[in-house]
Amino acid sequence: MHDYLASEYHRQSATRRAPAYQHLRRTLQHAIENGELTAGQALPGERELGRLLDLSRVTVRKAISGLVEDGLLMQRQGAGTFVAERIVKSFSALTSFTDDLRARGLDPRSEFLERSVGEVTPEEAMALNLSPGAQVVRYYRLRTANDTALALERTVVPADILSDPAQVENSLYAAFEKLGVRPARALQRLRAIAFDAEQARLMRLPEGSPGLFIERRTFLDDGRVVEFTRSFYRGDAYDFVAELHSE
Amino acid sequence: MHDYLASEYHRQSATRRAPAYQHLRRTLQHAIENGELTAGQALPGERELGRLLDLSRVTVRKAISGLVEDGLLMQRQGAGTFVAERIVKSFSALTSFTDDLRARGLDPRSEFLERSVGEVTPEEAMALNLSPGAQVVRYYRLRTANDTALALERTVVPADILSDPAQVENSLYAAFEKLGVRPARALQRLRAIAFDAEQARLMRLPEGSPGLFIERRTFLDDGRVVEFTRSFYRGDAYDFVAELHSE
Repeated sequence: MHDYLASEYHRQSATRRAPAYQHLRRTLQHAIENGELTAGQALPGERELGRLLDLSRVTVRKAISGLVEDGLLMQRQGAGTFVAERIVKSFSALTSFTDDLRARGLDPRSEFLERSVGEVTPEEAMALNLSPGAQVVRYYRLRTANDTALALERTVVPADILSDPAQVENSLYAAFEKLGVRPARALQRLRAIAFDAEQARLMRLPEGSPGLFIERRTFLDDGRVVEFTRSFYRGDAYDFVAELHSE
Repeated sequence: MHDYLASEYHRQSATRRAPAYQHLRRTLQHAIENGELTAGQALPGERELGRLLDLSRVTVRKAISGLVEDGLLMQRQGAGTFVAERIVKSFSALTSFTDDLRARGLDPRSEFLERSVGEVTPEEAMALNLSPGAQVVRYYRLRTANDTALALERTVVPADILSDPAQVENSLYAAFEKLGVRPARALQRLRAIAFDAEQARLMRLPEGSPGLFIERRTFLDDGRVVEFTRSFYRGDAYDFVAELHSE
């Protein structure tokens, strides 16, 4: 790991003009993305990292605290800094499940439990601002990373956005990008739930395990709704973070 | 209810210059705050409300959809509009537990399980950016509304912000306001949990009930941390909402 960090750091600092702490931050981020550093692994101490890369402790600390805020690293009192084991997801930035996990060096997949085209239900019509009779594409997916089930996700997309269900392979947002569909904002609602028997079976979890139910409506710049998604995330894998401001 | 809505609407529209839908929105909001409309209660239909107040259906719909977005009202397909039964809390605005509940016409209280002054632990020192040996005030509270337990909350505040634990009666934020302490932003982290036996006993819930663990660090404009709070909210009472933006 030390050799990798030293060579990656020198590559970063040779190719970009940026403060040293940003080179180190990118170095550590790449090490996590490339699996050079894995979930739960301890980082060298601040002093050791500083010596290895010829950086001050202040610089090392600044790089590390940025990655702690991003949720890629975590600090345990008295024990040092570790690669975070939980997936930390922003509750204010619109990011893709697939991208979130790739950024952590994991291999995200979608297992399709259902995939169909049909007429909107009244509830879907309301969520998507569609008229009765409109066609929609529906997905019910088990989302996994490195073969661990992380979420169950039901997505409904208007058929005039996505005409063929097969356009989504793993990632809905990758399919959107190919089609030139650019989600601009989303309204999201989250609550705590306990997995019921059927969900627990699909997730390979004990019935009643804690989870998060998240409902999302995603909009284009012009106000059209492109996605109505209801997800059940396992509670022991995800943290959601946000910055709050006084009104 | 009809008489109340009509007289409150006329009071609103007589005293303020604003579009009609805003008068109606405030009228309905006041009706909820004053307990004239209570959780789970059905609103009159759009047509009926329009007739009662001599407003178009478009105006009525605009007022209602604003309150649905705020989480004060909820719509059930085919059944109409109801006063929301869950407490909808923003995951982007810094608001007080007490104010959130008062806005819904509820009576929020704090039952103190512990209240003390002492030296920071290493973990608290890190969360509050304090030096070892600094003094802090600690609260462990059962938060209730109309005698229903909603959350268990452990709060630590530096003693140079709040010197006497008795300064907090019900609301920490009300105490801050009295002292001229103005929280500007907070970092918040949320995860799903199951209540353990001790927590469940205090909350009068079955053990294993779903809940949300929320950790919050609140900052002043000058960067000082004024609060480190860890809360356990009951899962069947709270929804968290936020607007997400593409990066």
